[in-house]
Amino acid sequence: MNGIELTPDAAARALGPLGAERGDGDPVDAYARALWSALVEPGDRVAGALIDTVGAVRALEMACATSGGWDEAALAGLTRNELTQARGRWHPRIGAAPPALESARRAGVQLVIPGDDAWPQRAYDLGPYAPVCLWARGEVALLGGMTPAFAVVGARASSSYGEFVAADLAAGGAAAGIAVYSGAAYGIDAAAHAAALSAGGVTVAIMAGGLDRTYPVGNVDLVERITRTGVVIAEVPCGTTPTKHRFLARNRLIAALSDATVIVEAGWRSGALNTAHHAQAIGRPLGVVPGPITSASSMGCHRLLREGDAVCITGLDDVRELIGLGQTIFSSAQVGDHIDDRTRVLDALSARSARETADVARRAGLAVGEAAALLGLLELDGVVERRATGWVQRAPGAATLW
Amino acid sequence: MNGIELTPDAAARALGPLGAERGDGDPVDAYARALWSALVEPGDRVAGALIDTVGAVRALEMACATSGGWDEAALAGLTRNELTQARGRWHPRIGAAPPALESARRAGVQLVIPGDDAWPQRAYDLGPYAPVCLWARGEVALLGGMTPAFAVVGARASSSYGEFVAADLAAGGAAAGIAVYSGAAYGIDAAAHAAALSAGGVTVAIMAGGLDRTYPVGNVDLVERITRTGVVIAEVPCGTTPTKHRFLARNRLIAALSDATVIVEAGWRSGALNTAHHAQAIGRPLGVVPGPITSASSMGCHRLLREGDAVCITGLDDVRELIGLGQTIFSSAQVGDHIDDRTRVLDALSARSARETADVARRAGLAVGEAAALLGLLELDGVVERRATGWVQRAPGAATLW
Repeated sequence: MNGIELTPDAAARALGPLGAERGDGDPVDAYARALWSALVEPGDRVAGALIDTVGAVRALEMACATSGGWDEAALAGLTRNELTQARGRWHPRIGAAPPALESARRAGVQLVIPGDDAWPQRAYDLGPYAPVCLWARGEVALLGGMTPAFAVVGARASSSYGEFVAADLAAGGAAAGIAVYSGAAYGIDAAAHAAALSAGGVTVAIMAGGLDRTYPVGNVDLVERITRTGVVIAEVPCGTTPTKHRFLARNRLIAALSDATVIVEAGWRSGALNTAHHAQAIGRPLGVVPGPITSASSMGCHRLLREGDAVCITGLDDVRELIGLGQTIFSSAQVGDHIDDRTRVLDALSARSARETADVARRAGLAVGEAAALLGLLELDGVVERRATGWVQRAPGAATLW
Repeated sequence: MNGIELTPDAAARALGPLGAERGDGDPVDAYARALWSALVEPGDRVAGALIDTVGAVRALEMACATSGGWDEAALAGLTRNELTQARGRWHPRIGAAPPALESARRAGVQLVIPGDDAWPQRAYDLGPYAPVCLWARGEVALLGGMTPAFAVVGARASSSYGEFVAADLAAGGAAAGIAVYSGAAYGIDAAAHAAALSAGGVTVAIMAGGLDRTYPVGNVDLVERITRTGVVIAEVPCGTTPTKHRFLARNRLIAALSDATVIVEAGWRSGALNTAHHAQAIGRPLGVVPGPITSASSMGCHRLLREGDAVCITGLDDVRELIGLGQTIFSSAQVGDHIDDRTRVLDALSARSARETADVARRAGLAVGEAAALLGLLELDGVVERRATGWVQRAPGAATLW
């Protein structure tokens, strides 16, 4: 099967200490999920539904087959057409999966799968959009259980006011036994992680790229410090670069893995607003910290307040109340909306070197036909350009979120 | 009738230019209302209902009678007991009424009564809590009509951020033809008035005391400037000092006479919150400007945001939207709640010189029996003290709103 054997021996060889140290669960299932994480982009609903229905091993066999073989998959409520299309985007990545596991072994990254004690219970709320597995470094056991947790997120271009508030809330929460989740970005995220560490509390960083390379590079030290008493996780395997799509998908995880999300500062079009929408989509309470209306870094927060989408947070007591009132309602239609294929295609393009459609499709995790269709639409919109040697992205433009 | 003759001649003599310049309406009615404004504390529901039903002249005859004479008053939905109690608080002030009119004549203060072209239409929304008349200086005609207007109010202990925002909103609104209403207090109020004047727009100051003496003294120049292109008004006659009760009652007028109220800064227990509650009580839209959560001057604003009582205002566009969506619904029960007799009694006391119950009653505009009962309750609460020579107020304490 494309050079991949789904046997206990092959699993033991491939996972090595990843498998041995995990201790719990079926190693072949773990192996299959690890491979799956290399085939899919985060939040692949078809893969999620298929794995939930027939198991990761059988689903992987179906994915690797060259044709047909979907008989049991009907149970997942997926159409034959969806599945065949999905296989078109998974197939080109099969070759990259074993090297990703090899990198994880070398980097000392651990594997956590559903059913493990360390699997975060809250991830189940994502339904078919849940990660197939998590790659983790640090005190992995902290991920399991239901210790109270809140996400502190916000602008990278933060003000000193925003950083002070992020640090204040995170330190207060951490000291009170509330874990602080964030994305290890510059600005608000970094201030929250660092303050939680200083307070001697638990903090969890959720990364958009593989754990073998920290992004942004300037936060390497911070991330290393987090691994000593907290956890750093990603749903993409080692060797995966953080792309715009993966940042957006990562935001759904930040929202999902915590009891409530608090946005400390966000510009009018900040990426933190995307995390906000994910929190709303899965029914997690959303809070925002107000700031001066003269500050561009608070415009996104005020926008959410005005629209009645978030609660006004003025201190740790308000955070406690936010967590206490939390409800968990899964709404699949909304979660999916924010992860669109257009973004993936744009991520897969370069502004300098032209790429052929098949290359774009592989990088985007899409079938060649899908990628071609989307490239055509994006060309009409004037955001991509077709050259003799392939596709290029046009001027990065003002719409960049990250 | 206690030395007061309600005839056209007496009215002409008493009102002088006040009557002649007004031009419209029945001068005897105007005279009666002017006298009424000296008998009542602002927001006297019994007086309001009685005057609405039998007219100001007949109501004044009833008020001046020494007993009985309530036959037609049943139409006002008032009980004989309410009316007799009310007469108990009106009577002691009859002697002070003619001198108040004399002071108004000397100070060049104008009289505006319901039915006049200059009478603010929005005042009718206060029902029986509406002023019996308004005393005004400046471009009095600006009060009539329904030009868009918003109130900008907030903390006296404002920050430079708050003053900047107040000035920015007021100047923008004034320049766009939206009148700016406020209370001429230090801080936010003063910043709003001054900016509206600088922008060449209309601004209206609503005072808690008589117009012959400006409070606070530090804003005398500002108030004089307002009279040149705008209007300064009060419902109490000349010679009336601003007391806590009158400040609270004045706040209901600020809310009522504008289309929407915007609180720029307010501490946790700011008097601006009282204006907020009045705005809500009469169904006027309420907006608050957020600020840093580290600023005590924004705590009251954030409190209203958290409680869902106000809309988040980030600029003039939001103010426009607030005004555009405005509804006017009168709810008498709520308006009355905030004007309580306890406050009046406390206002009537001094912390230094002891005052006898009858003196307190006259100063508070209450019947002696009412004042005595309230003094007893306040003594139980430990806020007033009974001495051999009369009542004194105990340590001003932390509960002071103004």
